[in-house]
Order: sequence, then C-alpha cells, then structure tokens
Amino acid sequence: MSTLHNQDFAAIDAVVAKSAAAAAFWAESSAALRATLLRGLATALEQQQAELVAIADRESGLGEGRLNGEVARTAFQLRGFASEVEAGVPFRQIDDQAITGAPPAGRPRLTRIQRPLGPVAMFSASNFPFAFSVLGGDTASALAAGCPVVIKPHSGHPELSRAVFSLVAGVLRAQGLPEGLLTLAEAPNRAAGTYLVQHPSIAAVAFTGSYQGGKALWQAANDRTRPIPFFGELGSINPLVALPRALEKDSENLAKTLAVSITLGCGQFCTSPGVIVLLDSPHSHRFVAQLGEAIAPIATHRMLTQGMQQGFESAAAAVAANATAVFAPQADGAGPAPRLFATDAASFIANSDLREEMFGPAALIVTAQSAAQVAEVLDAVGGTLTTTLWGLESDSEENRLLVRSAQQISGRVLFSGVPTGVAVCHAQQHGGPWPASTAPQSTSVGYAAIERFLRPVALQDAPAWVLG
Amino acid sequence: MSTLHNQDFAAIDAVVAKSAAAAAFWAESSAALRATLLRGLATALEQQQAELVAIADRESGLGEGRLNGEVARTAFQLRGFASEVEAGVPFRQIDDQAITGAPPAGRPRLTRIQRPLGPVAMFSASNFPFAFSVLGGDTASALAAGCPVVIKPHSGHPELSRAVFSLVAGVLRAQGLPEGLLTLAEAPNRAAGTYLVQHPSIAAVAFTGSYQGGKALWQAANDRTRPIPFFGELGSINPLVALPRALEKDSENLAKTLAVSITLGCGQFCTSPGVIVLLDSPHSHRFVAQLGEAIAPIATHRMLTQGMQQGFESAAAAVAANATAVFAPQADGAGPAPRLFATDAASFIANSDLREEMFGPAALIVTAQSAAQVAEVLDAVGGTLTTTLWGLESDSEENRLLVRSAQQISGRVLFSGVPTGVAVCHAQQHGGPWPASTAPQSTSVGYAAIERFLRPVALQDAPAWVLG
Repeated sequence: MSTLHNQDFAAIDAVVAKSAAAAAFWAESSAALRATLLRGLATALEQQQAELVAIADRESGLGEGRLNGEVARTAFQLRGFASEVEAGVPFRQIDDQAITGAPPAGRPRLTRIQRPLGPVAMFSASNFPFAFSVLGGDTASALAAGCPVVIKPHSGHPELSRAVFSLVAGVLRAQGLPEGLLTLAEAPNRAAGTYLVQHPSIAAVAFTGSYQGGKALWQAANDRTRPIPFFGELGSINPLVALPRALEKDSENLAKTLAVSITLGCGQFCTSPGVIVLLDSPHSHRFVAQLGEAIAPIATHRMLTQGMQQGFESAAAAVAANATAVFAPQADGAGPAPRLFATDAASFIANSDLREEMFGPAALIVTAQSAAQVAEVLDAVGGTLTTTLWGLESDSEENRLLVRSAQQISGRVLFSGVPTGVAVCHAQQHGGPWPASTAPQSTSVGYAAIERFLRPVALQDAPAWVLG
Repeated sequence: MSTLHNQDFAAIDAVVAKSAAAAAFWAESSAALRATLLRGLATALEQQQAELVAIADRESGLGEGRLNGEVARTAFQLRGFASEVEAGVPFRQIDDQAITGAPPAGRPRLTRIQRPLGPVAMFSASNFPFAFSVLGGDTASALAAGCPVVIKPHSGHPELSRAVFSLVAGVLRAQGLPEGLLTLAEAPNRAAGTYLVQHPSIAAVAFTGSYQGGKALWQAANDRTRPIPFFGELGSINPLVALPRALEKDSENLAKTLAVSITLGCGQFCTSPGVIVLLDSPHSHRFVAQLGEAIAPIATHRMLTQGMQQGFESAAAAVAANATAVFAPQADGAGPAPRLFATDAASFIANSDLREEMFGPAALIVTAQSAAQVAEVLDAVGGTLTTTLWGLESDSEENRLLVRSAQQISGRVLFSGVPTGVAVCHAQQHGGPWPASTAPQSTSVGYAAIERFLRPVALQDAPAWVLG
C-alpha cells in the first residue's frame, strides 16, 4: 500500500482518525443525545432547504419538486430514527437468568446486548442527492446505532455534499459534539475508495451505487486481513408481473401509471420497473400497445451524469440487439427518449444479456405462455429489490407459485401500484438476494436499517455496574 | 468446472436436487410439523445413544462421559428449537397499516415477514461429533427456519455420521416427510466442498472448522455468480484477563479451574482460553506458578485426528520460537502434554505469530504493565468468540476501558468462570469479529441462530389470502 500512498490517502487517514477518536464516546452516548443530534440535523436541513435544493438541482437536474420531496423524506427519516433510538427498540436486552444444575439446562446468567460496530464508511449514491447522501438513511441509521460516519461524497453533486456537510459541522459545534461523529472523506478515485474501505479503523461499509463499483469495494472489504460487514445495494431490475385479469378493465390507466414509474427521475431509481412480465393473451397485447402509447412521448430530464447517460445507451443497445423494439424512440426531452423492448420468456431465461439492468427510462416486456413459465422468468431474475404482482387477488395454486417465486428473489413484493416510492417505516425491507444487496438479510430503508450497524454481545455473569 | 466433474460431483448434484425439491414444501410447513420433526429426531438420538456414543468414542477418542453430555445437549437444542418454532418468535410479522396522504408520512400497507433462505449446506465440525454435526445446532436451527439441510459429514467421524444419518432417514420415513429435508453429501475433498458451496440450488452455508478450510469455502461462496450468505466459525484465541485483585485469594483454585479449561477435550474447543493476560504484579507471578503446577501434570486423551495433532505441534512450536516456556512438557497421556508459554504485552502486540490459535492443550501468558496496555492486547486480538475478565467487580475508568475493549472484539464477555461451556439459550451469542465468525452479527449457538436462515420480505398491499 505504501507505494500508493499520497495526499489523498493522508487526508483519509486524518479523517478516519477523527472518526475513530469519537467512536467510544458515541457508542456510550445516551438515547437523548443521539436523538437531539438527529433532530438538529433535520431542522438545519430544512432551514437551508431553498439554497440546498437550488444547488442540488443545478448539479443533478432532478427538478425542484422532486428535490423538495427528497428533503422532506430525509428530514422525516432523521426524526424517525431519533424516535427509534428513544423507544430503545434496537438496543433491547435479552436477559436469561442463571439456572442451577448441570448443563444443558443449567446455565450462568447471560444478558444479550447490542453494540455499535464502530466507524462506518458511507458511500453516497448519485440518484438521491439528499436521501442516500451526506444525511441520508445510511448516515441516520448508523448514527442512531451509535457509530460515527465517514462520508464519501458522490462526484455527481460535490457542491451540495460540501454545503450539507458544512451544515452538519455547524450542528455538531452548536451541540458541543466531537467533529469526528460525521466526517467527509473526499475519495476521488477507485484507489482512494479502496483505501477507505480497507482502513483498519473502519468497522463497516454502507454503499449504494453501481454493480461494478460496488462489487469492487465489496471485494476490497473481503480482501482485508480482517474482513468487515459490507452493506451494498448494487442493482435491481424489479420485475412487474401483470396477469390478464388485472388488465381486463382500466388497463389504459395502469399503462399510464406504469409509464410514469418507468420514466420517473429519468428512470434513475433502484426500484424502477425494468421487466414487465405478461401472459400471452389479448389483454396483454392491448396493454403493450397502451404502454407504448403512454411512454413513447414522455420527455425526460437530463440524466445525473454524462457517464450514466452513456451507460444507459450502452445497456439499452445491448438489450436492443437481443430483443424487439416496441416503438422507435421519439420523445424529445433533455434526457434520453424512453425505450420499450419485447422478448419471449424462453429467450429471457436463456440470455443473461437480457437480464442486465438498464439504469434509465426503459423496460423490457417478457411474454410467457403460462404461470409456471412466469415463475421461471422470476427464478432467472434471481435477485431484485422488488417484484410487483398484479392480478393475484384470489387464492389458487398458480398464484401461490408466483408469490413464492417473488418472495424467493425479492426484498419487497407488491400486490398493487408500482415499485418506485419506498416508504420509511418498520415493516419496510429494501434489500434482497445478490445483486440487490451484498447482505440480503439487511435493509437500507426503514427502521430495521439500524440493525446493520449493531452486533450482539452476550455478557456472562456481568456485575450490576456493567448492565447499567 | 466441467473438467473437474466426476462421480463425487454427480452424487452431490443428486443430493442437492432432492434438497431443492423439498424446499418449497418445508418453507410452507406448519410450526407443528417442524416441531414434531425436531422432537422426533431428539428422541431417536436418545434411543440409540449407547450405540452412537460407542461409535463416536471409537472414532474421536473424546470419552463416553463427554460424549453422553454432548448427546444430551444435542437433544436439548433440537427440542429447544421445536419450542422456538411453536412460540413463533422467529416468524413474527411487523404490520404497518396504510396511512393516507403524501409521502413521506403517507404510505401503503406493508407487512414484514420472515422467509427461509432455501437449502443450506452444513459443514460438520470435527470436535463436536454430535452437537456441531449431523443433528447439531446448525441443522436444528436451519430446519426450524424452514430450510432443508445438505449435511457434509466430517472425515474425523464418518461411521458416526452415517449412523446418525440412518436414524434421520428413519424418522423422516416414519413421519412421512420428504427425504430431501435432510440429506448427506459425502464431499471427500476440497474440490467437492467447493462444488457443494457453489451449487446454484444452495442458498446459504454453515461451517465450523479450521481457518484455512473455512476461508477457502467462504471465498468459494463469494466467487459464485450470485454470492450467498456464509456463516462460518473459523477460529478464536479467547483471551482471559485476570486482574491482581481477582488473584488475591483463592488463586490456587482459579489456577486449577483454568488449567482444566485449557486442557478440556485436549484443548479442542473453539472457546478454549488461549491467551492469559496478567498485570505485572506479585499476585500474577504467584498465579503463573500455580497455573503451571496445575496444568503441567494433566494427562490428555488423544486428539481427534492425526492432522490436528500435527497442526497443534506446529502451532505450539511457532509460539515457542517467540516466547518463553513456563515449564518443560511433562505429562504422559495419550495426547500431547499441555504447554504454557509466556511473553510480554509489547511482543504480543508486535508479533502476529503470537496471536495464532494453538488448537490443543496450550495457552500463552501475556504480561502487561497497565490496564491501558491490557486494552491494547485485546485490540491486537481483534476478533474472538469470547473474552473473560476476572476482577472487574467495581466501576472504574480502567474497568470501563477493559469492558469496552472486550465487547469490541468478542461475541461473549465473561466476568467469572471460564469460557469453555456454551449455554443454549436466547441471550447466547457465539460469534464475533473475523476470524471468530465470517458473519459477526450472527450466532451459531442459542436460539438467535435461527435468524441466520431467514430473510425479511416486505409485502405491500398483500391480499388477505397471502397474509394467511
């Protein structure tokens, strides 16, 4: 590593040292102190909302409406985690009293507690400049768990990241808290990101981003002398199954709703529905036509970065080479025109190129001949954040098969509506089998996200002063 | 892989296919059905206890007393997981009702459920022919979670594994359950183990064993196209800190207790205390002498395998080259004579060779000059199943530092007694930072072990028939 050491690495060392120095203090901090910080950050964010949204819009092109909504969500979840900490749920103890006598029934007293892991390296996402960035869900949940956070800002919105971080520093100062609780590590290239992930004082990593970048950092975490937990969300194609009975009536409105979901934010959502699975039927054929009509004219805003636009064009071209275009791209917005492709189930299952994510305003229609073949299509998807199932109102063998297949590959299964839009609540699960998550049993949205940064410890025969 | 394909791999394919065929049935099975199987297995084990223990003793040399105790523990935890499933705790749902209005407060109805991962490949341990083998804790917790188990028997006790498995097959037949629920995959070499871990139908792996073997299989799981959760316990040196105040009186008895713990089962326990950390004081010097007197004459039984005995001699020689022998090996048992080495804290911290596990009847005494240096010793250990702290009855800054350091590196922290002996209960945590566990937030002993094999799924707007 020494040959690579340069100014960037020295800066990361300095930042991580501050984080490590704050770790013991924050691990022992009271629920009240943590909640006060989380609420203070929410309030500060809202107070500077107008300026911050203007910067974010300039850098991301996402539009003020969407960005204001995102600030609201970011503040909502900071306050939500404050309430979680106060309720104490994530820190619940399990106390097993001693039982006299020989094992296996006899035992000493054991108390199971939850301990924060230590400094978390958090890699911001490009597509949520607020909600998955400096003060996003990863930061909120790690702070709530008692872990300092080293923030790696996303190169797509550097000015916003610095502005939000400056707000953070002000809140820490005002509350008399160590500056190491939240630090900014500018890691401008892959080597610097790897260096951060492999830093001996980093105890866990949270990442939201591309498959390629995320997999490389996950590998770096596993290559450490002592590998650490890596919570990465790497990609998802979010199949949506629409059975003919769901399309019998109102299919035109369903098509419009789906067209909006596919193109929302120029398709730059990890939950964007990328694969529409239909049964071969007249209702389905009509629905394809309606979806094409609804989506073709939608003008999108520019994509987050030039690189992402190139990535989208290249992914769409790869699918185009193996599928049929439902229409010729026509919309004339600042961003790419929406695309809709079609193929049959057997081709989708046989050709993994058709299962690659197109991160942008596009979807692939897959037509199957039976419910059993729909299940095979879902099996081929293998890992995804969401699966949507329309038309499963009644109990039947076929529907049970589809629910089972959907649950097997997804963190969230929807029975109505569209997968974009992820509620922040206790029941939420935003994760799923690889590549949706590198840690499929964890969630990055919702209050269970805090569990990623806690580790159980059993205290045996602990004196009263330790149990507190 | 095709060039490696041979008879072993074909046999594994056949076994995993049976397991996969049983997965959906078992995932949907009732708590009553699972509990009946788990209890049936416990009863069958006890009914054949005498014959099985005789085989186990012949193969392992562990002695009938210990092996009968292990059968009792194995049956106890099979029944314990049956009760867990009936209580429903691992399958608790979280239901968030819909809230009308715009996000972030407005939301659809979301119900968080727990789903079994699917077929689990379970690699048996050498040192617990019952409790971490065919019907051990990994099998019991995976079955309880709703996962079929493909058992890789340990080469150290093949006849016992087949005998227990034949009992299992009888119980499955008697209860009319699919034979795929529990299958035996003879994977006689590294390539076959890798093939099993990388089989597309395997959804998770449980492993207890050596660092080298476990790390290779963990790597194989990560090298899959779709990596899967790997729950591996790879090694632990279990520091025990004895402060002078703990040694003021009764130190002779403490030395005897510790000597027994170090040599128990010929030191072949993952929780065997391998590093004894003392402060430089007259009490400590007396304790070292007492420990030496207590441990030197203990005659051990033979080790589990010839390879393990060679591994122990080589590990002890590596420590001997860097530390002082407290006495010359003298006991004359069927197994290796106990060893006790001594070094100072600075050497222990500087030299990672001194932190390698000696899997056998040996320990290294590390003398520190201050509580702060004891904490540095613990930091250098980094990851361990247990840390024991003697003499921390009162609250002080120094004691808080030691507790914090112990919690940072351990899954279990003891304040009295010795770490060998792991109670099966709700509060237990048998895991810890790498290499104690490849998944430090999980446990392989106690009822939380079931969580390893479940994955949360959020159901959005699910119809009544899905929620059941």
